[in-house]
Amino acid sequence: MGEIVQIDGGVTAARGFLASNAAAGIKYPDRDDMALIYSEKPCILAGTFTRNVVKAAPVLWDRQLVEDGKSVRAVVINAGIANACTGEEGYHYCRETAEAAASSLSIEPEEVCLASTGVIGMQLPMDRVAEGVRILADGLSETREAANLAARAIMTTDTRPKEAAVELDVQGKKIRIGGMAKGSGMIHPDMCTMLSFVTTDALIARELLQEALSDVVEDTFNMISVDGDTSTNDTCLIMANGQAGNETIRDRDEAYFQFKSGLYLVLRGLARMMAGDGEGATALMEVCVKNAANDEDARLLAKSVITSSLTKAAIFGHDANWGRILCALGYAGTDFDPLAVDICIQSASGSLMLVRNGVAEDYSEEEASSILANEEVTILCDMHQGAAEATAWGCDLTYEYVKINADYRS
Amino acid sequence: MGEIVQIDGGVTAARGFLASNAAAGIKYPDRDDMALIYSEKPCILAGTFTRNVVKAAPVLWDRQLVEDGKSVRAVVINAGIANACTGEEGYHYCRETAEAAASSLSIEPEEVCLASTGVIGMQLPMDRVAEGVRILADGLSETREAANLAARAIMTTDTRPKEAAVELDVQGKKIRIGGMAKGSGMIHPDMCTMLSFVTTDALIARELLQEALSDVVEDTFNMISVDGDTSTNDTCLIMANGQAGNETIRDRDEAYFQFKSGLYLVLRGLARMMAGDGEGATALMEVCVKNAANDEDARLLAKSVITSSLTKAAIFGHDANWGRILCALGYAGTDFDPLAVDICIQSASGSLMLVRNGVAEDYSEEEASSILANEEVTILCDMHQGAAEATAWGCDLTYEYVKINADYRS
Repeated sequence: MGEIVQIDGGVTAARGFLASNAAAGIKYPDRDDMALIYSEKPCILAGTFTRNVVKAAPVLWDRQLVEDGKSVRAVVINAGIANACTGEEGYHYCRETAEAAASSLSIEPEEVCLASTGVIGMQLPMDRVAEGVRILADGLSETREAANLAARAIMTTDTRPKEAAVELDVQGKKIRIGGMAKGSGMIHPDMCTMLSFVTTDALIARELLQEALSDVVEDTFNMISVDGDTSTNDTCLIMANGQAGNETIRDRDEAYFQFKSGLYLVLRGLARMMAGDGEGATALMEVCVKNAANDEDARLLAKSVITSSLTKAAIFGHDANWGRILCALGYAGTDFDPLAVDICIQSASGSLMLVRNGVAEDYSEEEASSILANEEVTILCDMHQGAAEATAWGCDLTYEYVKINADYRS
Repeated sequence: MGEIVQIDGGVTAARGFLASNAAAGIKYPDRDDMALIYSEKPCILAGTFTRNVVKAAPVLWDRQLVEDGKSVRAVVINAGIANACTGEEGYHYCRETAEAAASSLSIEPEEVCLASTGVIGMQLPMDRVAEGVRILADGLSETREAANLAARAIMTTDTRPKEAAVELDVQGKKIRIGGMAKGSGMIHPDMCTMLSFVTTDALIARELLQEALSDVVEDTFNMISVDGDTSTNDTCLIMANGQAGNETIRDRDEAYFQFKSGLYLVLRGLARMMAGDGEGATALMEVCVKNAANDEDARLLAKSVITSSLTKAAIFGHDANWGRILCALGYAGTDFDPLAVDICIQSASGSLMLVRNGVAEDYSEEEASSILANEEVTILCDMHQGAAEATAWGCDLTYEYVKINADYRS
């Protein structure tokens, strides 16, 4: 397979994609809160959405577009109000937003995807949204900066914009995949996380684009958790406009797997950024389970540790409280031999074995604490059962998480 | 059915049961950390235990006693060290503790139940445990105070002792059921919660005692959650010594259901106390789901809301953030119509409808906030689907919870 190179970029990295940002005053004063992604050419669309029974209006809108299988041209995103639990009125505002964007961009409303993030239950102020759409349409640009400003405009409690991009060689043609995401609280994606938008200039069959996205989301966004709360708005969209000029990817051949590898790198990058920027987080917590009996077990075990409040609080306290880790493995909902488990911690400060065959090693608590006092910490759990492995990403549980979410209507 | 009266009392409320406490210095300085429950007559025993794959040594010991079906006389409990993840050495210390108690009490080691709570992974200091057992055997008393001191001795991060008792009339005989429990963190019982000990003077067949306990635990301890972490040590034991002199309860008749109702009141009382005294909690949070499609759905929905970090943080902030409640119902793992759901909050300060048919009512945020500023808050979710209902208990998520669990090896 050809080389895959990670490059600096976001949603404008792939040819023919433009982006813009606007301060529409939807809920936050004095900051950007709307973004637009636009493709010069029609795109095929694939998407994954929240499995929450309660789905936000824009999720219903986008899901319909994906099901219809028609080409699309744009995505309009707003931060501040989630347009969830807003009934028929909320869905009506989706249509109005799409119509406003279609009118400004001279395309059809059914070519406009929508996404919202923020407070549940409030209605969108449509006059400001419509004005925001006009600003967005006027400000489109294909620059690196435009992508970054768009990534900033969709943040809510996020402290950092989240972007990733790769370039890969497929049959002698350079293909690019670039994406942005937002998400910090209510992060426990079930199908896909809060909001993520990926663009690519690859030429690829729609079914394969959807298959690649669904597969990769399972190993990336669906393996992160900040607080165990699966949002009503989780959305991951990928738009492919075919501008790379490669021979269309139609089979599960080398070109397809290379495209999928590139997509994995982009989504894993965004997923890790989201976990590390979890509400109030001081550390990214990575849990690698290896030698589990099967893939499903490996995933269950890794997610159980990543969501354990007690383990998360211990990481915040730089306390190598491995009993909580073993306990969380134990209630994951799958069977294993506790006396076969090894647990090791790793970070930029080193690596240390805490548990061998289910009981404590004679390790230095001081050394363990210094390993845990890093911005990225890895917990390795070796189950000694089989050959399956899985990785999950989360963050520590801090005073700041409680503060952010106890503050009135964050 | 005869009357069931809640009475002041704990594990010595039923005839023929004694209790004691001791400061053995196992981990905490200057406080009681061991307790003993003792019956003058042999007791039949029933128990429910953690479903965590990683089970503490005393859980394995007690489970064997329940399986063997022989009569028992005593329970020895220590706080500070959980004797979990301690391998063969830990199990050996269980046997030594039972032998020490048997010797002091002139009974058999297989008549002694054991329970431990505290830090995972440390070994028990057996010299101090043995000395503690001697003090306990010497201090036995049937007084109300003895029960209360025992309930205090088994606390870890608990801030209050947890006791409950009832008296009921069965075929003209007064039967008493009394219990104590401890639990504050790592509380998300799966089978039974941290530690709970119930005594009764009822005469009842062993199979029915186990059946009643298992059924009632499902609706009480298994419906509470503090932090979603299912402990390695969860144990609920009930000892029945038959001193009430009633005709033996052998069938699922009126007497059985009355006994079960009394047991329910005791365990519900303890379960609510445990939830309200969750680590760092400022409020008991009760979630009642009604008119769900079936019992399993009702339970799933109630537990999903009670475990939602975002809902818990909102309760701490006295914020009627109903979107988080509806969101948590949505990811419970069962289907329903979001546009049929009503949500109402209640406390000593009043009652307020927040959501009707899935969308916001025009309520006063100020009034909602004052309702939530109480020590006990109820969230009522009417699903309008069927006739099933369930109640779950939890607590708010506070800075203090993080502090307690980030502090080095709490």
